[in-house]
Amino acid sequence: MTCAVLTIGTEITRGELVNGNSAWLSERLTELGFEVTEHVSVDDDRDRIVEALRGLSARARIVMTTGGLGPTTDDMTTECVASMLGVPLERDGASLAAIQARFDRLRRTMSPSNAKQADFPKGATVLPNPIGTAPGFSVRIGGALAFFMPGVPREMQKMFVEHVVSAVKPLAPDDRHQIKLRTFGLPESVVGEKLAGVEADHPGVILGYRAHFPEIEVKVLAVSRDRVAARELCERAAQLVRERLGTFVFGEGDESFPEVVTAALRARGKTLAVAESCTGGLLGHLLTRAPGASAFLLLDAVTYSNAAKSSILGIDAAVIEANGAVSEMVCRAMAENVRARSGADIGVAITGIAGPTGGSEAKPVGTVFLALASAKGTRVVDRRLPGERHHIQMISAYGALRLILDEIMQGTP
Amino acid sequence: MTCAVLTIGTEITRGELVNGNSAWLSERLTELGFEVTEHVSVDDDRDRIVEALRGLSARARIVMTTGGLGPTTDDMTTECVASMLGVPLERDGASLAAIQARFDRLRRTMSPSNAKQADFPKGATVLPNPIGTAPGFSVRIGGALAFFMPGVPREMQKMFVEHVVSAVKPLAPDDRHQIKLRTFGLPESVVGEKLAGVEADHPGVILGYRAHFPEIEVKVLAVSRDRVAARELCERAAQLVRERLGTFVFGEGDESFPEVVTAALRARGKTLAVAESCTGGLLGHLLTRAPGASAFLLLDAVTYSNAAKSSILGIDAAVIEANGAVSEMVCRAMAENVRARSGADIGVAITGIAGPTGGSEAKPVGTVFLALASAKGTRVVDRRLPGERHHIQMISAYGALRLILDEIMQGTP
Repeated sequence: MTCAVLTIGTEITRGELVNGNSAWLSERLTELGFEVTEHVSVDDDRDRIVEALRGLSARARIVMTTGGLGPTTDDMTTECVASMLGVPLERDGASLAAIQARFDRLRRTMSPSNAKQADFPKGATVLPNPIGTAPGFSVRIGGALAFFMPGVPREMQKMFVEHVVSAVKPLAPDDRHQIKLRTFGLPESVVGEKLAGVEADHPGVILGYRAHFPEIEVKVLAVSRDRVAARELCERAAQLVRERLGTFVFGEGDESFPEVVTAALRARGKTLAVAESCTGGLLGHLLTRAPGASAFLLLDAVTYSNAAKSSILGIDAAVIEANGAVSEMVCRAMAENVRARSGADIGVAITGIAGPTGGSEAKPVGTVFLALASAKGTRVVDRRLPGERHHIQMISAYGALRLILDEIMQGTP
Repeated sequence: MTCAVLTIGTEITRGELVNGNSAWLSERLTELGFEVTEHVSVDDDRDRIVEALRGLSARARIVMTTGGLGPTTDDMTTECVASMLGVPLERDGASLAAIQARFDRLRRTMSPSNAKQADFPKGATVLPNPIGTAPGFSVRIGGALAFFMPGVPREMQKMFVEHVVSAVKPLAPDDRHQIKLRTFGLPESVVGEKLAGVEADHPGVILGYRAHFPEIEVKVLAVSRDRVAARELCERAAQLVRERLGTFVFGEGDESFPEVVTAALRARGKTLAVAESCTGGLLGHLLTRAPGASAFLLLDAVTYSNAAKSSILGIDAAVIEANGAVSEMVCRAMAENVRARSGADIGVAITGIAGPTGGSEAKPVGTVFLALASAKGTRVVDRRLPGERHHIQMISAYGALRLILDEIMQGTP
């Protein structure tokens, strides 16, 4: 069954914001089993809104619309739908009371323009807004079922999950299953090459990729005669994907690589200390984005200058002088000393040249050393990373996360 | 003059990527003086591509299209245009040679499917691709001028800047001027409230907002009888915006707040040391994203544990015990001690409760202390920040950046 998404607002057509609503809705609809064939965005113009709605409801069976439900004169979606259907607007008492209650709660006076948000085309089904003032609604337009939601992403998403999914789910073909695998360490083109033939070998399977740099999500979607067969097909294809990508697959679902690593640290009760140079605090930031870092992170010494490497980490200035700050020797000392000074189980260090300046023939931009020290000893790896400064920093921090995970998982059954 | 943007690709309609191309192109076209009225995205389907092109070229004078120019069978944009116009495809020798040269440079063999990328509808104007294999082209479709560019954002952007702008600029009304002001510290709704009436007082001025959390860009666009009048009108309105927003405006153009602060540090030759707790390295990361940080950043001690606050920064454990790690006293000591230990001109510290756990009645989640120590003495501020963990971390780091900028700018003529 085909779906279309219509997003309304001059802020979109002028490029003032990136249209995340279309992508979000399309991803959900695809997961539910629908085929999304078209997105349209129009500015706040009555004729263009009506023309777009007419076209989309003639071509698709379900139309998801966002935007234009606010209290201002720019917000004209509801009126457009009513005039297109040739029905009057009717005020909904329950919606009006909910809007009024919201203003009372915030101790603000409701303006008459907000009352307009309780008006709906006669015959519409109202969709309550769990977290904002603008309710949504659904109506039939010819052969299509059309849903109208607010443009604010959080409100739209909550309304969709709580009130729209249940209305459209019965219309979705119940014949598909999806598994999301999360990878890190391979460029998207190489992931694609490694998975060549998986679709051909598994008719009904579609692979999708989504890059959240530096992670790439591989979506394995299987369509078969029923849900059970789809799940079985999906699991077979996903197993092959796992085999082809090996340890580059670090998880499933929505958990990011830093979340996987920090969860492992917490689960094993291991403590960590970090010494960073070229990443400038990025590894610490990734480790502390999710709550609970105080259980494992004792210290992150961002020793950006050579003097700090000596004074804070106690690395002999002569060693830095002789080897350079970006060297195996200094990286090893950073990891070992930050571990010793903090008393952590694991010490991790990053030193490198993120560029664009600072490179030399012997140590070009992208030269990075990573080290991990534990009771078992110290491991140092060196890398030549491609790309721009931010890429080199991010891949270095992810490389250190990988060392930590490998260390924790070693000797795990 | 009206423009429309068509983006082609099943990865878009399935929601596998957020459609940044439409926003990017629309922002550029709006700046050039065009009115963008419609965006359409369709999947890789011949009929829908043709139908979308037909509709858009009937409704708009300029149509910008991206996607579907690659070498695979999914890529069918060029064929669709040729069949729609009723003209044959013709191979362009110069484009073929450029594609071949690119493969030679990368020492890869060109496959026959890549040769297809040198085919264009007869009569088209070829648009060279400065950084990828797929060239673009432009054709007239009825009364509209249509441009076809690759879907890869970097390639599309470069092609647009180098080959499309010069073709469309003569068609743009030469009657507008834009100034972008960058702000930090106020929520978007408050920025909007403070600027109420600016548009009404300056007919021809349109204000646009774009949030890059935690920064908000205010775009002042003025349209008048000619370019000179537009610039004059724009500058008057921008001046009023600056007055209304005061020091919340930190710059103009595209420079982010961390870039402004680090540029100021470099320009004054001041050195900096940082002590972070709840931000976990985020401030260091913001200071080192742009190159050149080694000129000013000596050290960032992310003392996440109390033990590290004592061992690395030399803060008396009894002081931490008596006041709590999140306290004015400890924050002051962090800033003063990191300055003393590193020998930096300025020491900055952040300690707080980013949540979601760890709050108490006296010190709820969002309680944050910021301190700055310099030769002039130490300043400590406390904040109660709303929002989720990541918001609290980001606003804390920005608050510390603000302290640094205020310190550097003090006594500046």
